[in-house]
Amino acid sequence: MADSIRVFASATVANVACGFDILGFAINEPGDEVILRRCAEPGISITTITGDEGRLPYDTMKNTAGIAVAQFLDHTGITEGVEIELHKKMPLGSGMGSSAASAVAAVFAANKLFRDPLEVQALLPFTMASEGVASGSAHADNAAPSLLGGFILIRSYDPLDIVRIPTPDSLYCTLLHPQIEVLTDDARKILKKHILLKDAIIQWGNVAGLIMGLTTSDYDLISRSMQDVIIEPVRSLLIPGYDAIKEAAIEAGALGCSIAGSGPSIFALNTSMETATTVGEAMQSACSAQGIESELYISPINKNGPRVLE
Amino acid sequence: MADSIRVFASATVANVACGFDILGFAINEPGDEVILRRCAEPGISITTITGDEGRLPYDTMKNTAGIAVAQFLDHTGITEGVEIELHKKMPLGSGMGSSAASAVAAVFAANKLFRDPLEVQALLPFTMASEGVASGSAHADNAAPSLLGGFILIRSYDPLDIVRIPTPDSLYCTLLHPQIEVLTDDARKILKKHILLKDAIIQWGNVAGLIMGLTTSDYDLISRSMQDVIIEPVRSLLIPGYDAIKEAAIEAGALGCSIAGSGPSIFALNTSMETATTVGEAMQSACSAQGIESELYISPINKNGPRVLE
Repeated sequence: MADSIRVFASATVANVACGFDILGFAINEPGDEVILRRCAEPGISITTITGDEGRLPYDTMKNTAGIAVAQFLDHTGITEGVEIELHKKMPLGSGMGSSAASAVAAVFAANKLFRDPLEVQALLPFTMASEGVASGSAHADNAAPSLLGGFILIRSYDPLDIVRIPTPDSLYCTLLHPQIEVLTDDARKILKKHILLKDAIIQWGNVAGLIMGLTTSDYDLISRSMQDVIIEPVRSLLIPGYDAIKEAAIEAGALGCSIAGSGPSIFALNTSMETATTVGEAMQSACSAQGIESELYISPINKNGPRVLE
Repeated sequence: MADSIRVFASATVANVACGFDILGFAINEPGDEVILRRCAEPGISITTITGDEGRLPYDTMKNTAGIAVAQFLDHTGITEGVEIELHKKMPLGSGMGSSAASAVAAVFAANKLFRDPLEVQALLPFTMASEGVASGSAHADNAAPSLLGGFILIRSYDPLDIVRIPTPDSLYCTLLHPQIEVLTDDARKILKKHILLKDAIIQWGNVAGLIMGLTTSDYDLISRSMQDVIIEPVRSLLIPGYDAIKEAAIEAGALGCSIAGSGPSIFALNTSMETATTVGEAMQSACSAQGIESELYISPINKNGPRVLE
């Protein structure tokens, strides 16, 4: 048994336009890296955090990586101690599943370190528990795709029911991170508890269309279905220049464009790497026109989940 | 060009548990039969209606068959006259798409009679217009599957976007029609205009699961997804003994069970003809226990749409 392991888990795009709280997919970059070390002393300690500008807690029970590993050890009855190094290689509070990526990397690493006592999918509840601490509610739409790779449907939370959605081979994500911060908690609070039934009907028509489009590689149907009449109209108010950035993406040839997770990041789906790049440049330029700097990521759908490094 | 034509169009199950207003499928029996005759005199007349116990209007502009044919003639610029015989071979006000079946049979017949000036799918708007008169709002979740056959998603009404959903070869419908009447208009009025966002999330998770289950022949996923947390809890109040009938269906082995259209008919989906029959007997018996007589129909999904008779 190795004494240490280094694992990378990727950022994710949750909600995916019409699929609020039920859809998410993983991309290749950016993501988080963890190093886990077994140690004789029982207990978990976080020894190093980099890339967070000092914002993340070293307290194991307040850090998503620590919580996920603690839950894993508790569940499996492993009594050895673990040291965690967390290297954030993606922005916090970006809507790209930052806290989920840390938890997924850490718990995936812990499972590997102790020779796979659990199936990968069985690790999901530990990451969700830790997400509950980070965002105030236990969601899976970032953690599940980061852990399992690919495009994921959370059909139900109670009981948890995870379904893989096949995607076309040629599907590329453009992800723009404007340099402003939207707290997940604020993004949740802005939503209304009640919605119009007629809007819900439009939304679930689009959800059905998106699933059908993805499974049959019908890009036109994917494009027509990438519409969110419920969440986006509210949350986009928190993102300056949102409409202009989205319009730029569509005009540059994106299949669709919407808010990544709770924002402020904005994603677009595209049929080629080339289009994804052109779309990214158009989005970044529209964002600059608002006087807001941004980071840009272009990636195919990541179908593999976390990976062991070295 | 033949002088007359006889066409059968089938009953349909709309909503399909979680898919309120967006999903529907066709079955083989029962359905409506029309005979259309060309005549020298311009204008449309309804000469005979049978099987309606005198309840349907002969006034062309108040009868869904008449309205659909009128719209078709108007659209195509055909100036010849048409006589319509309408033979209802299914119950009215049953939730099985009775008015849609009449409209579909009539407009499909008219198109054939005048040598197919339009593609079949292009006939859909005429049936929707007539449905608007019958139910107070122009829906397509009965008319589209009756006209096109199979399992249909109406992704969007504006613009109209119809998507075929593939279904497993082995999928059989049990349809129970309790001998009570629920008016479509009443069934609409009982619904709340606002719903909880958290319920909508559950619903669109199930919609996504149902589409995925149907396209991949994953019966277990179909079964888990056939849940309606929004419409069924309200509309089932209009159907005496609903919970007991549904429970009987599930216990007898149905994949799922819910209200057909606006009710009072109740449908179940099953993996074999044998199970569909057993389930039907259990449902009918539970319905009898409420002191309510019922009619029972068992059928595979009808993948063909209307058919010309003789």
